[in-house]
Amino acid sequence: MNASMTAAVEVREQDRLALPPADTPDRGSGRRLLANALRMLAVDAVEAANSGHPGMPMGMADIAEALWRRHLRHNPADPRWPDRDRFVLSNGHGSMLLYALLHLTGYDLPMEELRRFRQLGSRTPGHPEHGLTPGVETTTGPLGQGLANAVGMALAERLLGTEFNRPGHRIVDHRTFCFVGDGCLMEGISHEVCSLAGTLGLEKLVVFYDDNGISIDGPVTGWFTDDTPRRFEAYGWRVIREVDGHDAYALDTAIDEALTSCGKPTLICCRTVIGHGSPNRAGSAEVHGAPLGSAEVAATRAALGWTSPPFELPDEVRAGWDARRRGAAAQADWQARVDAYADAHPQAAAEFLRRMRGDLPENFAESADAWIAAVAERAEPMATRKASQQAIGTLAELLPELLGGSADLTGSNLTDWRGSGGRHLHYGVREFAMAAVMNGIALHGGFLPFGGTFLAFSDYSRNGLRLSALMGLRVVHVFTHDGIGLGEDGPTHQPVEHAASLRLMPNLDVWRPCDALETAVAWRAAVERAGGPTALLLSRQTLPAQPGTGRIRDAARGGYVLVDDERPDVVLIATGSEVAIVMEARRLLAGRGIAARVVSMPCCEVFDRQDPAWRRAVLPDGVPRLAVEAGATGLWRAHVGLDGDVVGLDRYGESAPAADLYRHFGITAEVVADRAQRLRSPQS
Amino acid sequence: MNASMTAAVEVREQDRLALPPADTPDRGSGRRLLANALRMLAVDAVEAANSGHPGMPMGMADIAEALWRRHLRHNPADPRWPDRDRFVLSNGHGSMLLYALLHLTGYDLPMEELRRFRQLGSRTPGHPEHGLTPGVETTTGPLGQGLANAVGMALAERLLGTEFNRPGHRIVDHRTFCFVGDGCLMEGISHEVCSLAGTLGLEKLVVFYDDNGISIDGPVTGWFTDDTPRRFEAYGWRVIREVDGHDAYALDTAIDEALTSCGKPTLICCRTVIGHGSPNRAGSAEVHGAPLGSAEVAATRAALGWTSPPFELPDEVRAGWDARRRGAAAQADWQARVDAYADAHPQAAAEFLRRMRGDLPENFAESADAWIAAVAERAEPMATRKASQQAIGTLAELLPELLGGSADLTGSNLTDWRGSGGRHLHYGVREFAMAAVMNGIALHGGFLPFGGTFLAFSDYSRNGLRLSALMGLRVVHVFTHDGIGLGEDGPTHQPVEHAASLRLMPNLDVWRPCDALETAVAWRAAVERAGGPTALLLSRQTLPAQPGTGRIRDAARGGYVLVDDERPDVVLIATGSEVAIVMEARRLLAGRGIAARVVSMPCCEVFDRQDPAWRRAVLPDGVPRLAVEAGATGLWRAHVGLDGDVVGLDRYGESAPAADLYRHFGITAEVVADRAQRLRSPQS
Repeated sequence: MNASMTAAVEVREQDRLALPPADTPDRGSGRRLLANALRMLAVDAVEAANSGHPGMPMGMADIAEALWRRHLRHNPADPRWPDRDRFVLSNGHGSMLLYALLHLTGYDLPMEELRRFRQLGSRTPGHPEHGLTPGVETTTGPLGQGLANAVGMALAERLLGTEFNRPGHRIVDHRTFCFVGDGCLMEGISHEVCSLAGTLGLEKLVVFYDDNGISIDGPVTGWFTDDTPRRFEAYGWRVIREVDGHDAYALDTAIDEALTSCGKPTLICCRTVIGHGSPNRAGSAEVHGAPLGSAEVAATRAALGWTSPPFELPDEVRAGWDARRRGAAAQADWQARVDAYADAHPQAAAEFLRRMRGDLPENFAESADAWIAAVAERAEPMATRKASQQAIGTLAELLPELLGGSADLTGSNLTDWRGSGGRHLHYGVREFAMAAVMNGIALHGGFLPFGGTFLAFSDYSRNGLRLSALMGLRVVHVFTHDGIGLGEDGPTHQPVEHAASLRLMPNLDVWRPCDALETAVAWRAAVERAGGPTALLLSRQTLPAQPGTGRIRDAARGGYVLVDDERPDVVLIATGSEVAIVMEARRLLAGRGIAARVVSMPCCEVFDRQDPAWRRAVLPDGVPRLAVEAGATGLWRAHVGLDGDVVGLDRYGESAPAADLYRHFGITAEVVADRAQRLRSPQS
Repeated sequence: MNASMTAAVEVREQDRLALPPADTPDRGSGRRLLANALRMLAVDAVEAANSGHPGMPMGMADIAEALWRRHLRHNPADPRWPDRDRFVLSNGHGSMLLYALLHLTGYDLPMEELRRFRQLGSRTPGHPEHGLTPGVETTTGPLGQGLANAVGMALAERLLGTEFNRPGHRIVDHRTFCFVGDGCLMEGISHEVCSLAGTLGLEKLVVFYDDNGISIDGPVTGWFTDDTPRRFEAYGWRVIREVDGHDAYALDTAIDEALTSCGKPTLICCRTVIGHGSPNRAGSAEVHGAPLGSAEVAATRAALGWTSPPFELPDEVRAGWDARRRGAAAQADWQARVDAYADAHPQAAAEFLRRMRGDLPENFAESADAWIAAVAERAEPMATRKASQQAIGTLAELLPELLGGSADLTGSNLTDWRGSGGRHLHYGVREFAMAAVMNGIALHGGFLPFGGTFLAFSDYSRNGLRLSALMGLRVVHVFTHDGIGLGEDGPTHQPVEHAASLRLMPNLDVWRPCDALETAVAWRAAVERAGGPTALLLSRQTLPAQPGTGRIRDAARGGYVLVDDERPDVVLIATGSEVAIVMEARRLLAGRGIAARVVSMPCCEVFDRQDPAWRRAVLPDGVPRLAVEAGATGLWRAHVGLDGDVVGLDRYGESAPAADLYRHFGITAEVVADRAQRLRSPQS
């Protein structure tokens, strides 16, 4: 983190929105009516679905009214407006609150969709899903991760503003607001990201804590007694304590304070009652995650004085919530500023817009071709983590959006590069935070984040990876020390099952390159992949350069013939560091009169997406196959079948020098040759 | 958590050990000499291995001297003494500190082993491994988890004391000490477990924070600026601030204070210098994880005035460290107390010793037979999570050591039972903490812990599961809502790749039972499995009872023929909720003149461990196979081969009622029947 990032950011004195126009209800009772519309939409939708979580929307409705009607700068007509405020519902089970807000303020989410809450094909799934529903900034539900995404968004805003704003021109200037519940704050990731946000002084981040004292098991006093304000002060946050979460004016005052500059993120602690408005369930865990039932729905209607039928709304409610005019004006104001910026700084403006669209630079493909050709030409033996560092160095010149980092293993992951400066983040020993913050950065736009840790510790961040895959975010995970080849650190640090288990995750591409050339190809594939994340599994140890400079295009297909014989007796498949072993086994087999084809399979997912002709050409029917990877063997059966064989490791590693381990576990050219020979003549 | 658990525990006024005998050096210089022995053993071992972490042992040597020589109650001759104090090195990369302590105090860890640090087959691996080295209480290295284990140990001590101590008899009365570094405290799990420990008031837990201001990437000020004392006070801990970690007497004073009763766990914040003693590397990140090199080793020797050659020790050092006499006396004292206890409470004493040995009760097998036979007899349709709750209820009567819990999903996981009282823990929304705390409980002994969450959130706790499998601990993970059958909560909550990815983890048994009978069999297998953890994957939705009460023994073999035809044309393999689908498909196929065998495969790992004859009998050669599971398909190729087929789900789920999802994703009896028919006649 460079100095400019931790310095306090200039914030406009007063960017609170103007008060709502006079024709909308603004007395306390009017605002309660608007909040009650959120409550009843949530109650009725959960009732219709006979499934869902009414408690949180009822509890946070007043907070939502205060924030969304008075302070949130957004334009329902353009959910992708680059300078909108970001809003994250980290307690995503309260999805109906968000759907109600989106519907009421004017997003393209008709009432019909609210009626179909939690039904197949609706845009109102059980938990908010980014990409499915306009205005949903991130997919939430797995607790704590929305908060982490929000930290990533606020960080991206800061960095992008630092990079693009100019004296007299502020085209990046928005806030990130986040709702969290007790569950989010119990999760460990809340510690990781809030500690980091405090250190970074992300003052445009405002978090609302729904302090209702209830989690699913009941009153939290038996398992969660943190002094949360004190905890966040320890992180270096501004904490606004004990705000009545059902008092719109108290909330206004708190939010006004939160928007003043102090160099720190702000936590607003809101005392609320879960299920507020339900006469018999409010304040109890019962109301968290189950429909109220028709009798209690009726009682709630009566208690709130709500007379409209389900999914119908009084005109004054519609008028009071409609944010389209204000939103259009806000965006038009910004557009005027962007136009002025474009006049003064045309190149920067074009670059800013390109970055926010997520397009690669126009000349990228050409430059990448030249770069990879040069890597192939050099054919240098090196660790693939080192090859990755070289790739990053080149890509960083081509792609100013590249934003690196490491979870306190920079010198091991080799994620930094010469002149990386403010473009390399020290995430600290926080793997899960790194993954989820990167998701937030990618969601914000303007950056292509990557982050490093040891492959074994992908376990810590696994659900963050999953959400990047589920959302289809362009994020690159640099996982080094990718097997027993890391040696002496031993089984706690030696991934065995990790490569296979990552391959099982839908929409994650997992590359395990065998040399510098494949590493470059993998990196290129990762940055060109717009629709999902990529994991790069890289060696600690030096690997030889494999022969053939003509294989650049082949390698990009995920699996290809590295060396061949005219009529192979056996196909040897390997990835990463085991390709060299297989190449040596091929030489041994040749000495025994057995012809072996070597297939390098750096990315099974990409290979599986190739047309059948390619796959059959690489793995011909009728020739026995042997896969070699220093890890779990089971998944390789999908490529070698039951008639083939797999040389791998279905147990934990050991602490010893790498060469000793390969011998000890029988992952050697001799063993591979013997097993291949047996495979060819099973009777012998 | 019941009231008796949160009440303050009576603590003996003064259980600090007597000062060392007069014949050992006790002036400051003498104690420094003893600490320097730790430093030099670490330095020399790392140098010999040309690999390892000298910085932490050098920085924490004085703390280790103060704790281990003055306060830790242990007996090197019996590392399994039930009432020893537990010591956990959560910053496990400093393993040489622990090995030096074990060697010097008299454990069976000869100098030869220290010379072979990090070599194949040594008892001194790169990170401490429980079960390999006497005196190593837990495997550490993945940061933060040792701290979590320590919380589990302290909790187990509390619960066991509450259960077994009697007026005038204190047979369970020890402490848990833990070393942590900045890395442990940055990790999210430190938040989860320290928040929990504060709520539970685990006052016999004492944590030493190695506050050296350095992590691998350098001075932590750029990424970790927490006010850690304030953070821990927010958790309800006693914090002893700013102790000079190189002043033995200041440390004594701090530890004395930490041992007084206050109803809270204690954090002692020790200011230290990483690599203390190395003239040119101390205080820098360089000294963290690399050998000093011969020149700096020589400089360190000179600076410390250490004249002995590597791996040799002056007699006064040996004498000063030897803890065997004191340890034997302490254990003898305890044994006398146990004998008195056994006289007064013979049954409780026998039970206590059984529990600490980890043996099941003598009559367990017989009772379990009767219980499972009754379950088979009833043949009730029900959700397997419900069947699991019934199993727990029965097992809790047979096994007083059963200690349940849930990560705030008790009513969904159904982990509680009638009268569970203090035997069911509310872990809060802390999945990773739950897994790692359970590991600590199992390591402590006396309990058989199990804990519940949704299967999708096994991602959050994955590395905790891995460590239980690596250590071979008897821990049971109850993972409910095991697929798209959970319905409306949607893809964030629907596990797709999780069953397969857990099966890849070595030494973890993964059961996915299809009905109440198989659930009982799975639970029995889990509690009888002494050498490793078990994951139970359970349905939210009701499942029919499958036919056949005679299949109890078959089911215990992991995979078996559920129904058969004399000469099957095709074998249908399924697990859990998909077994019912396959049974229906079999009926459809019969109508088409195709004979299908149905194989239920509740546990692939157990099936794979059966003798080949069993496996061949269940899955005969030459009959095509079709596997059905509502999840990732790839790993099933290990059972069906490339000629077989798999009906599953290689994408994320959707939010909708369960029945709609099964139809939508084509996991239906019709699809299975069609695919099976095609498999049988591939030309059609």
